[in-house]
Amino acid sequence: MEQNKLSKATLGRVPAYLGFINGLDKSIENVSATMIAKQLGLGEVQVRKDLGAISATGKPRVGYLRNELTARLEQLLEMQDGNTVIIGAGRLGKALLDYTGFESYGINILAAFDTKIEREETSKDGKLLLPMSRLSSFCREKGVKLGVIAVPDAAAQEVCNLLCESGVKAIWCFAPCRLYKPADVIIQYENMALSLAHLKMQIRSA
Amino acid sequence: MEQNKLSKATLGRVPAYLGFINGLDKSIENVSATMIAKQLGLGEVQVRKDLGAISATGKPRVGYLRNELTARLEQLLEMQDGNTVIIGAGRLGKALLDYTGFESYGINILAAFDTKIEREETSKDGKLLLPMSRLSSFCREKGVKLGVIAVPDAAAQEVCNLLCESGVKAIWCFAPCRLYKPADVIIQYENMALSLAHLKMQIRSA
Repeated sequence: MEQNKLSKATLGRVPAYLGFINGLDKSIENVSATMIAKQLGLGEVQVRKDLGAISATGKPRVGYLRNELTARLEQLLEMQDGNTVIIGAGRLGKALLDYTGFESYGINILAAFDTKIEREETSKDGKLLLPMSRLSSFCREKGVKLGVIAVPDAAAQEVCNLLCESGVKAIWCFAPCRLYKPADVIIQYENMALSLAHLKMQIRSA
Repeated sequence: MEQNKLSKATLGRVPAYLGFINGLDKSIENVSATMIAKQLGLGEVQVRKDLGAISATGKPRVGYLRNELTARLEQLLEMQDGNTVIIGAGRLGKALLDYTGFESYGINILAAFDTKIEREETSKDGKLLLPMSRLSSFCREKGVKLGVIAVPDAAAQEVCNLLCESGVKAIWCFAPCRLYKPADVIIQYENMALSLAHLKMQIRSA
């Protein structure tokens, strides 16, 4: 089962599945899509599909061995490779630095870097704000694999190059541009305007 | 052709299609998926599918009448119903207020509201910052149909109720919660942590 085949929607339900199973009485050894769907108010077909994509060990009429399924769900959310840096400590970068909920998906935002920062600072939530000159060594020391680009368009390519040279393997880019990158690096572009425009389109035709 | 059947990815390419067609010599009366794909470096199958979803007027070997297709693309991006308010003027709300690129999708962010704002202010980009007490009358006056919730979890339901009472028909919610809403209001939840977690999952299995 390849992890990258899991849809974003399925991954989004993993914390709820895990929370439900962890709350069950210790004597329960098997869990089924039916019971999860009922308790969480989700469609049974959806839960069955999700669990099938998450683990291949389910059996008809029995469901999943609780321990096996729990281990698999935890693995999806584990901290490994979750160390993340943000480049750009403007409003967006700082908003992301403060955004809660990353932890429950195994994401650990370590620091934000900015050319405007001259010496190490600490945000109100205890997160590091660092000068750009520290980026490469920091990423290598901490084994950072994830980078978030929250700088203006014109600076994005330079930042992307720096991140790739520093060992980052996946980049979440908020700048409205297209970036050149090594073949083994994944870039995901976030177009906030498009999300809102798509929502607008839905009311206009409702 | 129902607009709400258009995917977010297709809508995302509409500004590029429109830009390309507007740049063509005036003498050209027909445009085809083939020429658009070639010029924009996109797959022909994708462009053909996009245009088919956007307009039903294409003809084999001829393509689309330029004027008809242009009108349809412009309609998708037009300003109608694009008036938008943001609730919550913390870092995230202000980052969204400053985010460029909304205009090219027909979205007009008019103002951000916050309980901490006591009297009308103007952001550095000339956007309005207003007290919450002004929200309802503002939305009604401007015919606001879109609202963005960028307040903490605990305040989100109250804000949602206020927006719905003020005539808002679609809500983009950044708070990590589930909201009760009238049947005719659409809510889209934005889970930033999930986007990053899904990206992380892709490197781990790469």
